[in-house]
Amino acid sequence: MADTGAKAPRERYRTQVRSEIKQHAWEQIASAGASALSLNAIAKRMGMSGPALYRYFAGRDDLLTELIRDAYRSLADTFRTAAGSGAGLAGLAHALRGWALEDPQRYFLMYGTPVPGYHAPDDVTLIANEIMQVLLDACAALELHDERAPFDEHLESHREWAAGHPAPAPVLRRALAFWTRMHGVLSLELAGHFAGMGFDAALFFDSELQELTGSGT
Amino acid sequence: MADTGAKAPRERYRTQVRSEIKQHAWEQIASAGASALSLNAIAKRMGMSGPALYRYFAGRDDLLTELIRDAYRSLADTFRTAAGSGAGLAGLAHALRGWALEDPQRYFLMYGTPVPGYHAPDDVTLIANEIMQVLLDACAALELHDERAPFDEHLESHREWAAGHPAPAPVLRRALAFWTRMHGVLSLELAGHFAGMGFDAALFFDSELQELTGSGT
Repeated sequence: MADTGAKAPRERYRTQVRSEIKQHAWEQIASAGASALSLNAIAKRMGMSGPALYRYFAGRDDLLTELIRDAYRSLADTFRTAAGSGAGLAGLAHALRGWALEDPQRYFLMYGTPVPGYHAPDDVTLIANEIMQVLLDACAALELHDERAPFDEHLESHREWAAGHPAPAPVLRRALAFWTRMHGVLSLELAGHFAGMGFDAALFFDSELQELTGSGT
Repeated sequence: MADTGAKAPRERYRTQVRSEIKQHAWEQIASAGASALSLNAIAKRMGMSGPALYRYFAGRDDLLTELIRDAYRSLADTFRTAAGSGAGLAGLAHALRGWALEDPQRYFLMYGTPVPGYHAPDDVTLIANEIMQVLLDACAALELHDERAPFDEHLESHREWAAGHPAPAPVLRRALAFWTRMHGVLSLELAGHFAGMGFDAALFFDSELQELTGSGT
């Protein structure tokens, strides 16, 4: 069915209820964790019967998938907007940091402890790939004259994840390092591990970023 | 009371029941997540009454603290044993990786998504400090002639977390980078983010490690 822009009232109502359910789901995650997500508890909070709510989401995994899909979509949009405004790798890093700090729960739902028994469907991987393409473009644009690392030989023959991106292995390696290093700092910061250590986490993030962009050191 | 080595039968029994409770707790965490930990559910599984179980742990947070303390203790021992056998920074990294892969749940309980409403007590921080001291010693032993980074100036005046370790700022920076980079790779690997990407996570871990130890690139 083509999206005509003007939705029928029934469809608008459905969208609105689904959005309300998701709002309650985020509140539940905040207070009890993602693995405790319960459609029946949400139904109760909304004054609906359990079966009525199941007309909007087929089950816990369906709701969880929708939240995760929204989260990936939001990060992909954040990256695209930043890249569209001319942001390079450093700009993407700061966009990522701002996005993560804005909603730590959303960050942890994507990149934190896996929810027992839950597996994200393939279409989420497609959005993750979209994020990776923006990242690869930014890494390629740095035009650093990287020394080759021993790992590059492995990457040359294991680059399916780059989904056809033409970047050479050192660029692929830099993209992986960007992902894991930024995640390493952000996830420990958001989980409170730096609290009480006394240093400025934002400065440390920038320091790690400078090593990746080959500037500042 | 001094530990005489030979415990009274009552004390031995208490230790045994506490250990059984913790075993059940890990099973619960595996199947439903740490935030769903329930003393009453464990009591039921063990055929005990709720109040009887509360004689062993004061509540969910007390049990969670014991699991987290065990986890930090285990990592601290792993690091000390490795360092005692002459392991340098690379040896510590491989010990960390082996330890994390051995029990991903334990890893995520320490470094994953925070459990809503739970705050670890100060004595856990003391074990974390012990781990950091071993790491700082290994970083100092590398004797690399680091270029100074802009972040080093900040670290010079924000080094309380090093708890008196005499290492200069570039060494402190390397220890932080070791922690966050190794965590970045390990946590994404353990959460399954590399599955389907096709590259060898162990080789990527080594590649990141080589940059930290200044070898191989």
